[in-house]
Amino acid sequence: MIYIKSGKKIYQNSIGENNLNSIQINNTPIDDGYYMPPEWSEHYGTIITFPTRIGTWGKKVEYAQAKFAEIALHIAKYEKVFIVVGKNNYNKAYNLMKDNVQYLFQDTDDSWVRDNGPTFVTNGINIRGINWRFNAWGGEFDGLYTDWKLDDELAIKICNDLNIEYYDFGDFVLEGGSIHTNGRGTLVVTESCLLSKGRNPKLSKQQIENKLKTALGVKKVLWLPNGIFKDETNGHVDNMCAFVKENEVVLAWTDDVNDPQYSLSKENYEYLNSEVDGNNNKIIIHKLPIPDIPICIDESDIELYQFDDTSNTINQTHNIGTRYPASYVNFYIANNIVLVPQFGGKNELSDKRAIEIISQLFADREIIGIDARVILMGGGNIHCITQQIPKFQIK
Amino acid sequence: MIYIKSGKKIYQNSIGENNLNSIQINNTPIDDGYYMPPEWSEHYGTIITFPTRIGTWGKKVEYAQAKFAEIALHIAKYEKVFIVVGKNNYNKAYNLMKDNVQYLFQDTDDSWVRDNGPTFVTNGINIRGINWRFNAWGGEFDGLYTDWKLDDELAIKICNDLNIEYYDFGDFVLEGGSIHTNGRGTLVVTESCLLSKGRNPKLSKQQIENKLKTALGVKKVLWLPNGIFKDETNGHVDNMCAFVKENEVVLAWTDDVNDPQYSLSKENYEYLNSEVDGNNNKIIIHKLPIPDIPICIDESDIELYQFDDTSNTINQTHNIGTRYPASYVNFYIANNIVLVPQFGGKNELSDKRAIEIISQLFADREIIGIDARVILMGGGNIHCITQQIPKFQIK
Repeated sequence: MIYIKSGKKIYQNSIGENNLNSIQINNTPIDDGYYMPPEWSEHYGTIITFPTRIGTWGKKVEYAQAKFAEIALHIAKYEKVFIVVGKNNYNKAYNLMKDNVQYLFQDTDDSWVRDNGPTFVTNGINIRGINWRFNAWGGEFDGLYTDWKLDDELAIKICNDLNIEYYDFGDFVLEGGSIHTNGRGTLVVTESCLLSKGRNPKLSKQQIENKLKTALGVKKVLWLPNGIFKDETNGHVDNMCAFVKENEVVLAWTDDVNDPQYSLSKENYEYLNSEVDGNNNKIIIHKLPIPDIPICIDESDIELYQFDDTSNTINQTHNIGTRYPASYVNFYIANNIVLVPQFGGKNELSDKRAIEIISQLFADREIIGIDARVILMGGGNIHCITQQIPKFQIK
Repeated sequence: MIYIKSGKKIYQNSIGENNLNSIQINNTPIDDGYYMPPEWSEHYGTIITFPTRIGTWGKKVEYAQAKFAEIALHIAKYEKVFIVVGKNNYNKAYNLMKDNVQYLFQDTDDSWVRDNGPTFVTNGINIRGINWRFNAWGGEFDGLYTDWKLDDELAIKICNDLNIEYYDFGDFVLEGGSIHTNGRGTLVVTESCLLSKGRNPKLSKQQIENKLKTALGVKKVLWLPNGIFKDETNGHVDNMCAFVKENEVVLAWTDDVNDPQYSLSKENYEYLNSEVDGNNNKIIIHKLPIPDIPICIDESDIELYQFDDTSNTINQTHNIGTRYPASYVNFYIANNIVLVPQFGGKNELSDKRAIEIISQLFADREIIGIDARVILMGGGNIHCITQQIPKFQIK
C-alpha cells in the first residue's frame, strides 16, 4: 500500500486548501486512526458525475442528465455539490445546475461515482480519500463495459482536484456501493459481490475481510449472502441493506414467497438475525418492501436503448419482461434530507409505504421522494450516483 | 358563435362518456348559465402537451420533456393527467410517465396548452370547453412562429378526444394565459396583451370585454395596464397577477425603483387598489416579489439554442444579457398542491420568500417548488404548460 499526498491543486477554493502538512502519516487508515463515518454524519458535500455514456443511457441520456441535476439541486440546498463532468458536456451541466453546484472537469466512462469515486475516511479531524481499483463490476470476467480506464482513474483525480490526501488501494477491486458502515466499527457487504470471480479471485474471504478492516477502520464485517434479484453489480449491498443507526438496518424485503427475491431476502434476514455488530449489539432489522409490482423492461424501454460497441453482452441482453432490480434501500442520506427512490405507476402504494418507513427511521430529516426510474433503467439508483464527503474540522 | 356538440369519441374511458344528451343548449355560455370556475376549485384533471418543438426548446428539448413529466407526475398523484403527444413522440412520453397519466394522440406546433387548449366552463353540474382562435401570440404582426395551424386546432381536438362539448369562439383570438378569474364574476386581464395589434385589432376594448363576459360568465373585467417586463406574450396576466381567493390577488412586484419592472407593477398596483371586483368587494393585493437577481441569457443558454426556420425574428434576437420574464405568479393550483416556479442559484432566498408567501395564501395545500428554469427559457412557466379540467357531477 502506498500513501500518496496530493501535490496537485487545480480546483479553486479547494476544501483542503488549508490542511496540507497537517497530518501524521503512517501506513494504513486503521493505523492512522482513520475510519469511514456513517452516511448520516454531517457532510461537507456530495460528488455526482454528470451522465453522458450512450451505452448506458441510450436515447434517455438527457432525461438522466435532468434527473441527476434534480437530485444535485435538492442536495445543494444543504451542502456543497461537486459535479464531475467532461469539458465537452460542461455547457449542458451548467445550464441545468448553473452556480448551484461546483464543477470538476474530468472525463469519465460512466457516471456511478459511488462505485468509482473515492471512499472518504476521517480521524475525526481531517479526511482522506481511498482509491480502490475499479473494473466495471467484474472486469473481463463479467464487467459491464470493455474499457474502464477513465473510471478507474477517477478517484485519484477527484482527490487531486479537491486537494484531499488519499490512500491508494489500487491493488484491490472494490466499489463503494458494495459496502455500508455504521461508523462504529461494523461493515456490511454481500458475498455474492465481494467473493465474485470478477473482482479479487486470488484473495480468500478472510484476506478480503482483512483488507476492508484495514482500509475502513472496522472491527467486524457482516457478510450477507445475497443482493437484489437481477442486480448486475453481482448484488451490491447498497441496493439490499443499509445501516440507519448504529445497530439498526433496513433490509429489502418481500412477503411474496413466489417472488424470486423472497429466498434471497429471507436468507439475509436469518443471517442478520443471528449476528451481532462489532460492539456486540444485536441488530434490529427493519424490513423495507420492494415494489409490489415488479418493474420490468417494456417496449418503450427497448425503443430508447442504444447500445454502443463498448458495452459487454450482459448489457445487450435486455429483453422485454426482464426485471429491473428496483429497491427502496438505494436511498441517499444528505444533510437534512433523505432522497428516496420512487417508481410511480402501479407502485404508488409501495412508494408511499417506503416513504413512511424511512420517515420513521429518520424523523429529524425531510424525506424527499424522487421518481428514479430513469436511473434504475441505467442500472442503479440514487445511492449509486452519489458519494458523500464527510465534514471535517481543520486543526 | 356556433355551438358544436362533439360526436366523436376516440378516447377510451372518456370522462364525458355518460353525459351526452344531458344538456339544455342555448347560444352562449353566459346564457346557458355556464362560467369559468376558479383554478382552486376541484379538478377532474389537468392537460399538458409534451414538448418537442426544436425552435422553442433547442438542444434542451429532452430536459424540457423531463421537466414537464416531473410536473405531470406531481399532479397525477391527486387528479388525472392527460398528456397531448404526437405518435412519433409517444415512446419518450410513455417512458417518462408510464401509466401514471393518460395520453391523447395529437400533433402540435408547440406545448403551451394553457394558451391553445380549451378553457373549461361549468354550470355547476356539467362542463363544456371553449375554443378560442390561437395565432401564436400575435399572428403575422408579432407572433412567435410562422405556422400555428395545429396549435389552433388543438382545443377542439382535445374536446373531441375527451368527449366534452364545446363553444366555438373561433372568431376571437385569445390565449388562456391572458385571463384569470375568481370564479365569482370577475376576470383580470392585461391591456398590453388583449389590446395588442396582433390579436383582435378590429374590436374595441368594450367589444373585447363583452366577448369575455359572454364566454366566461363574468360581470366585471379588471384591466391591468401591464404584464411582466420582456414577456414575449405581450404580457400575459398569468405571469403578473392571479386570484388566490374571491377578492384577493397576488401581484408580481419589486421594491427596486431602478428595475424596469417597478413602474409596470406599480401602475398595476395602483389600478387594482382603486378598483373593486364584480361583487363590489375591495381587492386585497399580496405583493409577490420577482427574483431579486434578474435571470438573463448567458453563454450556456446561447450554446443550447437551436433555431428552426419557423421561428419568427422575435425568437431569434436572444442575446447574452437579455432578461427572462421570471415571475413566481406563474404557479399552478392542482388538487391538494400548488406547484411554484423556483429559479435557484443566487435566487435561493427569493425562491424561499415566494414559497412562504404562497404557503400562507394556500394554507391547506402542499406547496411544491419546481426548478422551472428550463420552462422559463422556453418562454413561459408552470401555469403556461397546464390546463385544468374542473370536476363536474353527472346529472
